Amino acid sequence: MRTVAICGVGLIGGSFALALRRAGFDGRIAGVSSEKTLRRAREQGVIDEGLSLAEAVRAADLVYLAQPVSVIIGCMEQVAAHLKDGALVTDAGSTKAAIVEAATRCFPPGAFLGGHPMAGKAERGVAVAEAGLFEGRPYIFTPSQPSDLEGARARELAGWVERIGARTMVMDPQQHDRVAGAASHLPQLVSTALAAMLAGHPESEAVRAAAGPGLQDMTRLALSEEGLWGDILATNRAELIRLLVEYEGRLAELRRAVGSGDTAGWFELGSRFARLLRG
Amino acid sequence: MRTVAICGVGLIGGSFALALRRAGFDGRIAGVSSEKTLRRAREQGVIDEGLSLAEAVRAADLVYLAQPVSVIIGCMEQVAAHLKDGALVTDAGSTKAAIVEAATRCFPPGAFLGGHPMAGKAERGVAVAEAGLFEGRPYIFTPSQPSDLEGARARELAGWVERIGARTMVMDPQQHDRVAGAASHLPQLVSTALAAMLAGHPESEAVRAAAGPGLQDMTRLALSEEGLWGDILATNRAELIRLLVEYEGRLAELRRAVGSGDTAGWFELGSRFARLLRG
Repeated sequence: MRTVAICGVGLIGGSFALALRRAGFDGRIAGVSSEKTLRRAREQGVIDEGLSLAEAVRAADLVYLAQPVSVIIGCMEQVAAHLKDGALVTDAGSTKAAIVEAATRCFPPGAFLGGHPMAGKAERGVAVAEAGLFEGRPYIFTPSQPSDLEGARARELAGWVERIGARTMVMDPQQHDRVAGAASHLPQLVSTALAAMLAGHPESEAVRAAAGPGLQDMTRLALSEEGLWGDILATNRAELIRLLVEYEGRLAELRRAVGSGDTAGWFELGSRFARLLRG
Repeated sequence: MRTVAICGVGLIGGSFALALRRAGFDGRIAGVSSEKTLRRAREQGVIDEGLSLAEAVRAADLVYLAQPVSVIIGCMEQVAAHLKDGALVTDAGSTKAAIVEAATRCFPPGAFLGGHPMAGKAERGVAVAEAGLFEGRPYIFTPSQPSDLEGARARELAGWVERIGARTMVMDPQQHDRVAGAASHLPQLVSTALAAMLAGHPESEAVRAAAGPGLQDMTRLALSEEGLWGDILATNRAELIRLLVEYEGRLAELRRAVGSGDTAGWFELGSRFARLLRG
């Protein structure tokens, strides 16, 4: 591929551009974003030029959609209208079923491959983009059918994703949303609910003053502002409601175990998972 | 004070001894623990000598009880039987109402001052003790009455706690348990319940593979093994059950907000608390 169009030059899109450069990509990188963001991205050397969506897509061998989920879905028809023969569209949206479904309607077979880099930061925007963001992080591809992975452009994209240091994984879009629901969306809601509850604690100031690193860990996700989350929750709603019902049930069971002094099994199960998670 | 008896030479007791030394304490530090722990603590230079509880208390101007809550309560009568006139007993137990109540029965007025250093590590034991453990951390004193803070020994203890770098705070024992319930015990249970639930996820391996730093944060407390927690939960049971019921209710409300797409207020409230917590 000679030209990449990054649509949405924020933390993820900007970091993907920087990561490609560092990994040796010597083609052209066009950005599609607001005027202000494009100016900043050019100044930081993240992109070579800012273009309109139509111009960027017409020039691109790879179109990288890194906007919020609803914007990704909303721009697909326009992307499809200007896409070159043989070019590939991919995305970095946080949920995949809704996106892949829309893409299947908009693009011919093999022209779209959904993706989700499991990387991020508390801060957003191109100002905090960095070439190393994806290093050692999972990068999940979500083909609508296995052949989506087999075209030359898809293989080339997967190669670049490996060269930027990510660990590629493959899931179908529904499995991705179940797994991301459990690994990412549920933890976010658990953290936000805990922080929102403690904000209303009658001794909230003393709670903050007495807080240790444990509460810091448990409220780090709660630092997120809604921003992207509205789209994520809306496009993974059924699974998240199921996960929350299950988690509320687990808490009620644990509460009864606290009442009867019988919590050893809970700590054993939880600590085993937490250790496994750390390899 | 010339002689300090550290009862329970683990992470907290051992770190307190090391911190006293580094802050310029040049008296004698005796340890009370298992033979094996005492040998290790002497080798690491944490204590000067290992003694029996009776011997150590008879020699001590300050007795520092750093065992699990039930052991602290269980040794109080023996400590009281051997305590020198004018000596002070303090403790580092994680809940305070049960301990201060027992102490009020065992010790004459002014001879006991409850405390709780809000510091810790995932690992336990004297092997991981360090002089800097309390630096910048809250250290809560929980007098049964205000005069407990006014004796010469109590003022001397508070002076050392400040010299080891901790930030002293004062709460009554019940307030401490409410505040520690919200700032420490509830987050522990929330983390343990989340990790225990994900351990049983039908795609648990994919969840682990896809996990990012967010889930790492949210399961760090779940690494704790039950150990000390059995005592903590048992001595703060009523407040924890109340907090869990409240948290389950908040999650159910947030779940309904996810269903109606109306989560912006939750993220705003949660992120405001999380930012306040970070100063």
